[in-house]
Amino acid sequence: MNILIKNIKAILNDPVRVEDIDLYISGKLIAGINEEPEGFMADKVIDGTDRLLTPGLINAHTHSYMSFMRNCADDLAFMDWLFGRIDPIEQKMTDKDAYWGAQLAIVEMMKSGTTCFNDMQMNIMQTTAAVKESGMRAVICRGLVGSGTDEAGSMRLKQAYEERDAFKDCDRLSFRLGPHAPYTCDEEYLKIVAKEAVKEKMGIHMHLSESKTEIENCRKDYGCSPIELAERCGLFEVPFIAAHCVQVDEHDMDIMAAKNVSVVTNPASNMKLGNGFAPVPEMMAKGINVCLGTDGAASNNALNLIHEMSLVALIHKGTHATPQCVSAVETFEMATINGAKALGLDKECGSIEKGKKADLVIWNMKQPSMWPKNDPVASLSYSANGSEADTVIIDGEITMENRKILTLDEERILHETQNIMDRIG
Amino acid sequence: MNILIKNIKAILNDPVRVEDIDLYISGKLIAGINEEPEGFMADKVIDGTDRLLTPGLINAHTHSYMSFMRNCADDLAFMDWLFGRIDPIEQKMTDKDAYWGAQLAIVEMMKSGTTCFNDMQMNIMQTTAAVKESGMRAVICRGLVGSGTDEAGSMRLKQAYEERDAFKDCDRLSFRLGPHAPYTCDEEYLKIVAKEAVKEKMGIHMHLSESKTEIENCRKDYGCSPIELAERCGLFEVPFIAAHCVQVDEHDMDIMAAKNVSVVTNPASNMKLGNGFAPVPEMMAKGINVCLGTDGAASNNALNLIHEMSLVALIHKGTHATPQCVSAVETFEMATINGAKALGLDKECGSIEKGKKADLVIWNMKQPSMWPKNDPVASLSYSANGSEADTVIIDGEITMENRKILTLDEERILHETQNIMDRIG
Repeated sequence: MNILIKNIKAILNDPVRVEDIDLYISGKLIAGINEEPEGFMADKVIDGTDRLLTPGLINAHTHSYMSFMRNCADDLAFMDWLFGRIDPIEQKMTDKDAYWGAQLAIVEMMKSGTTCFNDMQMNIMQTTAAVKESGMRAVICRGLVGSGTDEAGSMRLKQAYEERDAFKDCDRLSFRLGPHAPYTCDEEYLKIVAKEAVKEKMGIHMHLSESKTEIENCRKDYGCSPIELAERCGLFEVPFIAAHCVQVDEHDMDIMAAKNVSVVTNPASNMKLGNGFAPVPEMMAKGINVCLGTDGAASNNALNLIHEMSLVALIHKGTHATPQCVSAVETFEMATINGAKALGLDKECGSIEKGKKADLVIWNMKQPSMWPKNDPVASLSYSANGSEADTVIIDGEITMENRKILTLDEERILHETQNIMDRIG
Repeated sequence: MNILIKNIKAILNDPVRVEDIDLYISGKLIAGINEEPEGFMADKVIDGTDRLLTPGLINAHTHSYMSFMRNCADDLAFMDWLFGRIDPIEQKMTDKDAYWGAQLAIVEMMKSGTTCFNDMQMNIMQTTAAVKESGMRAVICRGLVGSGTDEAGSMRLKQAYEERDAFKDCDRLSFRLGPHAPYTCDEEYLKIVAKEAVKEKMGIHMHLSESKTEIENCRKDYGCSPIELAERCGLFEVPFIAAHCVQVDEHDMDIMAAKNVSVVTNPASNMKLGNGFAPVPEMMAKGINVCLGTDGAASNNALNLIHEMSLVALIHKGTHATPQCVSAVETFEMATINGAKALGLDKECGSIEKGKKADLVIWNMKQPSMWPKNDPVASLSYSANGSEADTVIIDGEITMENRKILTLDEERILHETQNIMDRIG
């Protein structure tokens, strides 16, 4: 399909700036900016008046299946949260539940302007199926827990490959290995995962340095920090996304910078579980690629990247007593191109450029939260709430129009997810 | 008009809890909960299925006229923000501009569930007129700056009374005096304001202890903290709302507790301007009534109290490394009944009780940000974004229905406010 988006304010990159443009989409790709491609015949023309065009936002760390657990375990100490509330629900959860959870998550993400997410999950073939149907783009990471001598550990690795191979036909899906954390995988298993990742040419997505307890236990068990452990296991020899990194020190940051590790910061989740504030300005100053994630809905409780943008732009100004700290422009980059870089997708998406995939969001600025049209970049970080996302285009396909999801049955998804919590919540 | 809201999940108080209720509104008042008032004939029945009924949110500190300045001065040091950007716009601003600014603010607040706000303004008769037309409830505070010997100072006091007297007929409006801050009013003037407030039986609304610079300068000029200065000027002898209180110490808090001073915390604004985090848990532990505000759109940049609720519930968990710190229930109280107490309106609004004014919000839970219906109280603090506010009732009048503002011309307001920034921005 050919789409022309006419006369729209757009946020472009290098440097981040706002321009009024005409954008031409042909098939899956952005075929032209201001220059009409030869022989272009628009099947659809979208009027850009009072609208804002941005690259789709990239949620670089979530657990989409958890969406039905939102607002079911709040204001609890970590252990009460995990073992008192979340774990019992997960024990009763079926594969089908995970599928509907992922669907609800995808609807929520699209409705707040996200077009791509990086998922760590435990029920293979479920999130993938939901992504394929929905038109979303995603990186799927089979969560791996185990020890080196453990059969379950190698079984999970096998499952990761099975899932990857089963969805070869969907080029919106890519796959990484997801060793869960230093406290759920032993050193032996992490070394196996590292070797497998090299052999299979797969990136890795892992929780690292989230809480003080994790650091203390890692030092006790291994005599080093979680970042040092990951390095010595060889995990950083492939493209690596570290989720959280709240409790990293100078030396940890130097390792990550040297090894091109990307960090996903999850401000809501880190505050909500009492873990604190990641040293985001410090990591950026070291040249580390920092992007943005929501984490799962059990610890956020939304999957709304606009909310995460406002948090990351505000909290570090607070902790550093500096209004210039983490600017609106830096925040925009974290939520778009930096996420694409972390996922190895920056040649495909993360910015509005000719030749890239048409992963785009059209925001309706004509409402008080984005009005007047002063600085659209600032409006995303500081005044928008996410509900201004009006139209979503992924891989050249319109997946949401005028806030209606076109690819999924939202009514059915709401019905099914309520049923899940009525049954196992 | 008589309204029946049938079979709706409602958040009730003392203790905060969720119940399924039928609610009867007769004229301006809540006439019954579950019990039908004698002779009640509903003019309108609202179906509560998948909806949530709450008291209207109370934004206890804002400058509504500033709404058109949102996203026009971001990531700047305080002095560059104020003197480089905001002040030049204010110099060019007309009374009419302030009127349209207040209208835009009211639309934004209603659309995110606010039914009452506490305003500090410099253009009399403007916010008041906007409030009167809109159906909103508000406390209006004429901003006062000056010195004791200054004619302008006493002129401003006179204007405050003129405005109060001109709007005697609108019982949704009440009035306080608004001495701006210790750095814009001298001690002599503050003493005059205190005496006037006692004589006129008016409460006071003032910025206090916002920044470190303010504390340093106050200590240099007066040898005491801003809180101590306010006390010695007699300002705490009337009902007093202190906005910000980021930089208060133990002794300041003891004074405020003893003098029944209410504190409005403004988390977004305090972080955005680099002032940091108010000691909210500590103030609550002292028994101080803490409520919630957005501040003006030039330093927030939204007037969305749901956003503020998520911030206040999250940031203190982060700073105190404690997930139980500032719970969803406490946050809900801050945004409702505590605000009503601060404004002296707790006999009228702030909770769903028979005999109180019908200031209510109906939220549409049937969307991913509030779904499944796990814990509605938590959903307001942690997963909602504000756009779930579907119907707003103030003083028994439906002012917004199905997200359409019924009392104001939103299209005109957007047009006028864009024109203002095109002219003076």
